[in-house]
Amino acid sequence: MELFHSVSARSFRALWMFEELGLPYRLTMLPFPPRVLRRSFLELNPLGTVPLLLDGDQRLTESSAICQYLCSLAPDTPLAVQPGDVAYAAYLNWLFMSDATLTFPLTLVLRYTHFEPAERRQPQVVEDYSRWFFGRLKAVEAAVSQREFLCAGRFTAADVAVSYALMLSEHLDMSAQWGPATQAYWQRLQARPAFRRSLEIERQAAIDQGVDPLPSPLLRP
Amino acid sequence: MELFHSVSARSFRALWMFEELGLPYRLTMLPFPPRVLRRSFLELNPLGTVPLLLDGDQRLTESSAICQYLCSLAPDTPLAVQPGDVAYAAYLNWLFMSDATLTFPLTLVLRYTHFEPAERRQPQVVEDYSRWFFGRLKAVEAAVSQREFLCAGRFTAADVAVSYALMLSEHLDMSAQWGPATQAYWQRLQARPAFRRSLEIERQAAIDQGVDPLPSPLLRP
Repeated sequence: MELFHSVSARSFRALWMFEELGLPYRLTMLPFPPRVLRRSFLELNPLGTVPLLLDGDQRLTESSAICQYLCSLAPDTPLAVQPGDVAYAAYLNWLFMSDATLTFPLTLVLRYTHFEPAERRQPQVVEDYSRWFFGRLKAVEAAVSQREFLCAGRFTAADVAVSYALMLSEHLDMSAQWGPATQAYWQRLQARPAFRRSLEIERQAAIDQGVDPLPSPLLRP
Repeated sequence: MELFHSVSARSFRALWMFEELGLPYRLTMLPFPPRVLRRSFLELNPLGTVPLLLDGDQRLTESSAICQYLCSLAPDTPLAVQPGDVAYAAYLNWLFMSDATLTFPLTLVLRYTHFEPAERRQPQVVEDYSRWFFGRLKAVEAAVSQREFLCAGRFTAADVAVSYALMLSEHLDMSAQWGPATQAYWQRLQARPAFRRSLEIERQAAIDQGVDPLPSPLLRP
């Protein structure tokens, strides 16, 4: 399998899942945004987005879908929750919520504070969707106030998918406004060996492949 | 099971799935947005969003997750694609893409053309995310140019989830800019008996429960 990834992009979910599951993969790093900075990538993915996962003639472009797909290649993994399990509803809900509800508002903050030129920045939209994000993040705070992980009494792909939104939010300097349980949860996740390995693999692959190993320059303080 | 739904909201995906699968359910209609117009709903769903699906002590709030969850309650349904199937990757990708990639840009168009008061409208954001939507919709056009449905050679939950974005886009008067294959695909889907039944059930339940049976007044021409 080949994973196309940019430093700190949503495709980090897929990279981290590979490291958690121990599945073999090849990692190809792209500058961000690849649509602009690596035009040849459009031949592989006309949307120009990362991630792109190629597995033979299978292809996926949605990072949270990739989390679930990779679980299906590791049939007995505790990272998945199976249909029929009492935690299945919660597991699915978190997986879908991770991108559609928790990450998308952050992409607006990112775009209209960092990526657009000054005359196209939109402080009102940044405020609207920061508020939107913190409103939805209450669901995470409520869940991890009572439990170590989001569902099923163990670490699952739902934690990988949801916590990427925390990572992006931290890059956007929004983490001081998280609740205390969310702060502690994010510390627990970052302590995982597979998480730390993923960061190091990302950094080394970027250097080896001639891509800037830091998050987009626009995100640096 | 009890489904909380507002006319033409994303929760239509769940309603349509119930009708396709023939599973029993109770439908509770809410004015839109319920967060504002039915404050008591916040006791059931602190996020204030629809859908909310209650199944015993299971609860889901993500409409595309509900599509997959309901499939798991109808084990042999052809509406799901199972792990190991050659179409599983595509099926998952469409399910996740339906909301995170195809519906979210439309929610920005909706908000900043219809829901916000005049002084908070954002024509630039509407244009940015209309373009974003049409860019991503090319993936649908490419898929249904070659096939009757999105994946697996048959109608699946992925078609339900993705085509809700078409429904919302049509409400926003954006359908004239779809490609011809997308137009024809949407006609095929609307011809399904379960789709037409869902519209009629939604309308009748709204009337019976004292809720306006038309889409949000803000969406009417």
